[in-house]
Amino acid sequence: MSKTFLVTGCAGFIGSNLVDYLLEKNYKIIGLDNLSTGNKFFLKNALKHKNFKFHKIDLLRNNIEKYFKNIDRVYHLAANADVRFGLNHRKKDINQNIIVTYKVLEAIKKNQVQKIIFSSTGSVYGESNQIPTKENTFFPIQTSLYGASKVSAEAIISAYSEAFNIKSYIFRFVSILGERYTHGHVFDFIKNLKKNNNMLKVLGDGNQKKSYLHIKDCIEAIEIAIKKFDKKVNILNLGTQEYLNVKGSIKIICKHLKLKPKILYSGGRRGWIGDSPFIYLDTKKIRSTGWRPKYNIKESVKITAKYLIDNQWLLKRKN
Amino acid sequence: MSKTFLVTGCAGFIGSNLVDYLLEKNYKIIGLDNLSTGNKFFLKNALKHKNFKFHKIDLLRNNIEKYFKNIDRVYHLAANADVRFGLNHRKKDINQNIIVTYKVLEAIKKNQVQKIIFSSTGSVYGESNQIPTKENTFFPIQTSLYGASKVSAEAIISAYSEAFNIKSYIFRFVSILGERYTHGHVFDFIKNLKKNNNMLKVLGDGNQKKSYLHIKDCIEAIEIAIKKFDKKVNILNLGTQEYLNVKGSIKIICKHLKLKPKILYSGGRRGWIGDSPFIYLDTKKIRSTGWRPKYNIKESVKITAKYLIDNQWLLKRKN
Repeated sequence: MSKTFLVTGCAGFIGSNLVDYLLEKNYKIIGLDNLSTGNKFFLKNALKHKNFKFHKIDLLRNNIEKYFKNIDRVYHLAANADVRFGLNHRKKDINQNIIVTYKVLEAIKKNQVQKIIFSSTGSVYGESNQIPTKENTFFPIQTSLYGASKVSAEAIISAYSEAFNIKSYIFRFVSILGERYTHGHVFDFIKNLKKNNNMLKVLGDGNQKKSYLHIKDCIEAIEIAIKKFDKKVNILNLGTQEYLNVKGSIKIICKHLKLKPKILYSGGRRGWIGDSPFIYLDTKKIRSTGWRPKYNIKESVKITAKYLIDNQWLLKRKN
Repeated sequence: MSKTFLVTGCAGFIGSNLVDYLLEKNYKIIGLDNLSTGNKFFLKNALKHKNFKFHKIDLLRNNIEKYFKNIDRVYHLAANADVRFGLNHRKKDINQNIIVTYKVLEAIKKNQVQKIIFSSTGSVYGESNQIPTKENTFFPIQTSLYGASKVSAEAIISAYSEAFNIKSYIFRFVSILGERYTHGHVFDFIKNLKKNNNMLKVLGDGNQKKSYLHIKDCIEAIEIAIKKFDKKVNILNLGTQEYLNVKGSIKIICKHLKLKPKILYSGGRRGWIGDSPFIYLDTKKIRSTGWRPKYNIKESVKITAKYLIDNQWLLKRKN
């Protein structure tokens, strides 16, 4: 009998891609999403599949334990994924990223689910002075509430793993790009250029260096890591061995859109409070499995730009 | 005009000692406590003082913002301080240590309080492989829910500091001993020996090595650190340059009680899930200020034993 996995945030960017991937591998999938930032359109194919069952529920407010019965793995991807505006709606990070993770862990414990896979972020390293940043780098000081909420969720997951025989896989992502990407600066730039062809306002000085990974490479890395690592708590950076500054990604986007806008930088090393001027993760641990990304950063930016141009309705959404 | 400080958890072990200390220095003090584990008896002297105002409120459930008006510093000490039974009442750590800290930070932000002092713990280092453990040691993996909840609170405090011009002082304590000590293994041992003179059951193999600091040394270290350090986020270990194993503290206690009980060890390196077999913190940072502890560990254990024998009503309390 094929295994049954539960995916929280199944209608989101990463969640919906993961659901499609897992269905193709013949797993049975229970998908949960409150559709606040997720989109049912992303589940178009999955919803036709006999092995997929979708429940629109609110992980924070609803009783969620019943969905975790007879589940072999939980992919906990539901989150407030907005790092930039975290300071404007602080309760969201606390509720969606900490309390919901606690509720998911309680449901996992009560139903004796044996594995949790969690989407964390390179933002947990704050402004690291070790670059590329290793998983066991110096104890970081948090600079964003988003990073703080993710490091809290990681900590609570680890404590439950230690106590309740739950194996955990915590992935610290760089920015993920690709089909169904719906927030982040590539999204913002294209959205703004579609409104105004001639001018692009950019937060910071454009020299912030960021790392990116294509969604397909991200999902393959997750699946390989679950097979190859077997500790109680497994923490892995996911990213490529490259980085790109904001100016560089603007160049690719403008070339793709065939635009030459005037670019106005707001200035400063950081685009916003808590923005890290340089994110570049050490990925030796995941690479030790033989995993290699198939897409480089430039291709990923191009693919994402193309996807958004082909799906301009996404640019009109509030999220 | 003398400054006004707010102390959460003012009726607890550390809180009430701090209140007495600060009143002696002529500060005005607002004290908040829900008296769930705190004890009004500890505020006996403070309550007679014209500069002390006590409010029995529940930080989790009540609206707390009004108490933070015109406050110069907040000492946020209110917490679920029970590391050992954290796994039995998991929601307590989440609510009392994470959500309450978030609420305190919101109140601080809205009232533009400029400083927060926070009582964290050496437990945030989990089972460190660096001993003595430095503040910027390796990114730890949490082994207890108590440690996880404190590392979460630290992270959220740091993010608020970064964003909202709030200076934070985060102190990672070893076990604190001294007058008004009401939980931890010295308490448990004396309580059990008072019930049964002939036998003492001990969790673990008795070789767990722990560090201790006397409450008076702890408070002086806090006050010196606030004067000497001035970053946005200041993180300091507080402890002595010694440690003592559980067998050693039993010896001191039994000698003080003039008892020779049979000692039964449950066995294992850890006394309970999430117990760290060796806690010993690097204290170079606080010592760089010139601060030195006045009490050594053996004196602290003795003073604590004497205090509990003189105040046996405390042994009968549930907490």
